[in-house]
Amino acid sequence: MTEMLQGLMQDDFPLNLHHIRRRMRDCHPDAEVVTLSAPGTVKRATFGEVVERVDRLARVLGKLGIEPGDRVGTFAWNNQSHFELYMAVPCVGAVLHTLNIRLFEEQLIYIVNHAEDKVIFVDETLTPILEKLAPSLGGVRHYVVMGDPAHPDPAHPDPAHPADSTQVEGARQTTLLNVLHYEELLAEAGGESFDYPEIDERQAAALCYTSGTTGNPKGVLYSHRSICLHSTATLMKDALGLSSVDRVLAVVPMFHANAWGLPHGAALAGADLILPDRFLQAEPLAQMIEAERPTLMGCVPTIFADMLRYADEHPDVDLSSLQNAACGGSAVPKQLMKDFEERHGVRIFQAWGMTETSPVATYARPDETGEHGDEYWDGRAKQGKPLPWVELRLIGDDGAEVEWDGESTGEIEVRGPWIAARYFREDDPEKFDVGWLRTGDIAAVDRQGSVQITDRAKDVIKSGGEWISSVELENEVMAHPDVVEAAVIAKPDERWAERPLCCVVLREGADTGAQELVEHLQGRVAKWWLPDEFAFIAEVPKTSVGKFDKKVLRRELAEGTLEGRVRVSSG
Amino acid sequence: MTEMLQGLMQDDFPLNLHHIRRRMRDCHPDAEVVTLSAPGTVKRATFGEVVERVDRLARVLGKLGIEPGDRVGTFAWNNQSHFELYMAVPCVGAVLHTLNIRLFEEQLIYIVNHAEDKVIFVDETLTPILEKLAPSLGGVRHYVVMGDPAHPDPAHPDPAHPADSTQVEGARQTTLLNVLHYEELLAEAGGESFDYPEIDERQAAALCYTSGTTGNPKGVLYSHRSICLHSTATLMKDALGLSSVDRVLAVVPMFHANAWGLPHGAALAGADLILPDRFLQAEPLAQMIEAERPTLMGCVPTIFADMLRYADEHPDVDLSSLQNAACGGSAVPKQLMKDFEERHGVRIFQAWGMTETSPVATYARPDETGEHGDEYWDGRAKQGKPLPWVELRLIGDDGAEVEWDGESTGEIEVRGPWIAARYFREDDPEKFDVGWLRTGDIAAVDRQGSVQITDRAKDVIKSGGEWISSVELENEVMAHPDVVEAAVIAKPDERWAERPLCCVVLREGADTGAQELVEHLQGRVAKWWLPDEFAFIAEVPKTSVGKFDKKVLRRELAEGTLEGRVRVSSG
Repeated sequence: MTEMLQGLMQDDFPLNLHHIRRRMRDCHPDAEVVTLSAPGTVKRATFGEVVERVDRLARVLGKLGIEPGDRVGTFAWNNQSHFELYMAVPCVGAVLHTLNIRLFEEQLIYIVNHAEDKVIFVDETLTPILEKLAPSLGGVRHYVVMGDPAHPDPAHPDPAHPADSTQVEGARQTTLLNVLHYEELLAEAGGESFDYPEIDERQAAALCYTSGTTGNPKGVLYSHRSICLHSTATLMKDALGLSSVDRVLAVVPMFHANAWGLPHGAALAGADLILPDRFLQAEPLAQMIEAERPTLMGCVPTIFADMLRYADEHPDVDLSSLQNAACGGSAVPKQLMKDFEERHGVRIFQAWGMTETSPVATYARPDETGEHGDEYWDGRAKQGKPLPWVELRLIGDDGAEVEWDGESTGEIEVRGPWIAARYFREDDPEKFDVGWLRTGDIAAVDRQGSVQITDRAKDVIKSGGEWISSVELENEVMAHPDVVEAAVIAKPDERWAERPLCCVVLREGADTGAQELVEHLQGRVAKWWLPDEFAFIAEVPKTSVGKFDKKVLRRELAEGTLEGRVRVSSG
Repeated sequence: MTEMLQGLMQDDFPLNLHHIRRRMRDCHPDAEVVTLSAPGTVKRATFGEVVERVDRLARVLGKLGIEPGDRVGTFAWNNQSHFELYMAVPCVGAVLHTLNIRLFEEQLIYIVNHAEDKVIFVDETLTPILEKLAPSLGGVRHYVVMGDPAHPDPAHPDPAHPADSTQVEGARQTTLLNVLHYEELLAEAGGESFDYPEIDERQAAALCYTSGTTGNPKGVLYSHRSICLHSTATLMKDALGLSSVDRVLAVVPMFHANAWGLPHGAALAGADLILPDRFLQAEPLAQMIEAERPTLMGCVPTIFADMLRYADEHPDVDLSSLQNAACGGSAVPKQLMKDFEERHGVRIFQAWGMTETSPVATYARPDETGEHGDEYWDGRAKQGKPLPWVELRLIGDDGAEVEWDGESTGEIEVRGPWIAARYFREDDPEKFDVGWLRTGDIAAVDRQGSVQITDRAKDVIKSGGEWISSVELENEVMAHPDVVEAAVIAKPDERWAERPLCCVVLREGADTGAQELVEHLQGRVAKWWLPDEFAFIAEVPKTSVGKFDKKVLRRELAEGTLEGRVRVSSG
């Protein structure tokens, strides 16, 4: 065959973050970034102002010796400075490395050294954590402290700069060496426009480590192309549908999978971006929602559950601006969505994905044309169809593809332009099939391509040769009004190999018993799924990104330290 | 500088039409393609059925000797077979060449021979046109006639196959040589799944010629990448916002700039696609809209104007399902949008683009948060912001960039991944600046990036050293209730160099005079814009794609054959 005839379009026009930066400035100069700087107090900047600061920051990065390809770490909450780094670092050709502030010290040390971060930008409020690690981070040349120097955080007063000081000079008192200050650097950088380098769309733009259950954390190295296509996808109406009239509250941390693409998506769409900084408790979030009226929000189920409790206790609070609250990270309990919608007018939609998938791979935009009956709510319990450009398949235990019949389950494998091809400086052949990412999530897919996650592969329960979905069982237990959280794990069993053990957190003051919970489940799940045993615990342990950490529960079970265990009397 | 660090995502996952084909089959098997086969009669097929036929068609293309890179012509209305070709031809690596059935014979001959079409797929109803050209199309090996052979078009009965015949064999009586029949070929092709070739995203996928005012038609050669990114863009909420709950009526011809991307967009979104075949008159269109309830429609202003007249004359007709009618090709008169919305509940939004821009480059999604007052409707007269990934700039007469202040005008230059880089087998350096396409459209852009087209470069009127916008003047004349169409051209003038002459088509029975029109314009436009002369004509001549053909009017003016001229008495 002769050489293929190529199209004659501008196929060399790169999908890179320069376009998003220019678009913020040229088409949406009046959109705004709002940061909660203290409960009840916000800081505002227009996209026009932000891009001017991004240009200054680009110049600062050059002065700090950052070259294309270098990794620049961030250790920060969701705030305007972090967003400026989201734009400037990739635009100078460097790699934005968002560090998860909630990881263990040894994990953070491993990650910073593995990534070879040259500079770390750190929130003033988070410097105490970094100070402890710094002696082990030999490759970091500078720490740049962010935060308004005239208004230091009251929780961490800066002795060198009392609140009434307006003179800001030199390094603050910190045990960090080579400390610079963000606002000072920007002020010195000058306002003339910056001569950005050209950037190929395949160049690396961002790096985020994901901590698996075994081994060291693994780095996902996003390209400009993958970020740009993912951002574009978030604007599609059947996906998140980000638009210029939206106000987007990104509760999901900016150190976790690019905050689900919300910052870059809002920038591309011209949506206002609302950032809660470190105020992630239900009360300041609810107050911010009332004051700022976000239309769209992204966060994990546990925070939604906290907010629902808060809203139930404060019936005057008005959260109803949230007509498109995206929830992911774990399967979202149906009852949580239903309660929030029926009691507070907040609409929650499920998304599914992971760090390796940028992260949004599916979105469950419901068909609103019919009645909101049981069938409708069963649909809402699904994680939805793959976004355009994402393809998936189910692989069974035998390695063969599993049919999309809505019932048969298999491990999801996924491919597409914003799916990881491999990890940064680490081989993990088990994770990557030829052209596909093995996700470790078990699901059924229906005839219309809609995904329903039934389990994490490592959490599956096989009882008498049949699968029990821990996700579905948890979902049904959590539908009980007294249950705040539920995590189902497998318990070894001589006769059935495994049986489900249900760890339950009750709402304060409730004294619901195991027998009552079993009665509640009867008719909701198959009879052989009914747990033999419950554990009434104070809290479900969480991972650094807020997911249920079942391996802790399994370890406690194995070691005999799991609290509050109650066997169900066989009837 | 060392070699750039590349991202580690699936950047090799190609943006090609295979994904769209698979997505139709896997995620939207029950979406449908509806073709109007006769007034009041439709033919339906699900995406699942269509993809099965696409697979058969792919096999047929191989049997016809079509190899990757070969051009395959279509000479067809908007119907299911044409849509099947839209998918199958690029998916086998060949190039879909949509021929504009309304071009002059010599243009069609030039285009087919220039493109070297190997096979032409032709609607049975259009064979009489092709028969006349065929002797001049030496490179075409086969003609494949489309249409249900058991139900030939009553206007062109097929003597070899009476309507009651079910035996279909051999070629029909036509003067075309090497004739094959679409349905027969598909039936013979067998239903097993087809082994498609891998396709790089930069491979050519489609070809469409645009007939400029001078010289031969020029071919725009779309790549898979450009079509896929443009299709993705049409799904964005601030663009057309195509979604799986939409029903898309593509009135804009599939031989014109890929029907504005609606077929591929609907396929990607899982929207139903409704195709009117050759029934483009207001009455069958209105009946189809009532029966099929499309939510989204694309067509040029002249057809909307016809439909508005029809709807006004038939107040019972319900067109209100159309909540997102995209209108482009020419600036849309504000009054037309307002009348349609206020009298019939149909919402029309403006788009701007051209064959070289795939074609959607801007879309005017209004901000609906405020009142629908004068300011709102002034905004609706704009063509909107560039879509994400499209960038534009205004270039003045002096070659310098013109400021975006909402008033200063210049020629639009545009760039982005679905903008042409050059023409097929033709140099046209004047059309392409370094990295930018010169569009020939004159516009102002406001501070928010919203474009308002004031003229085609070749239509501008310069009077006493100042520009007069023919588009705006036409818009205001057409706001008069008796005016059906208005086209303003420049008339040479000794004192002012040029003065506007306004050609007007009045509604049947109206006898509005020049003086009344001038009075109508007073206060709506600057005083020195007021036309000195009107020409009351029976119809504004149209181009092959339905736009006002002002060069005919200018020629008639120059030759002294322009009818109905009336000078305005200076008051």
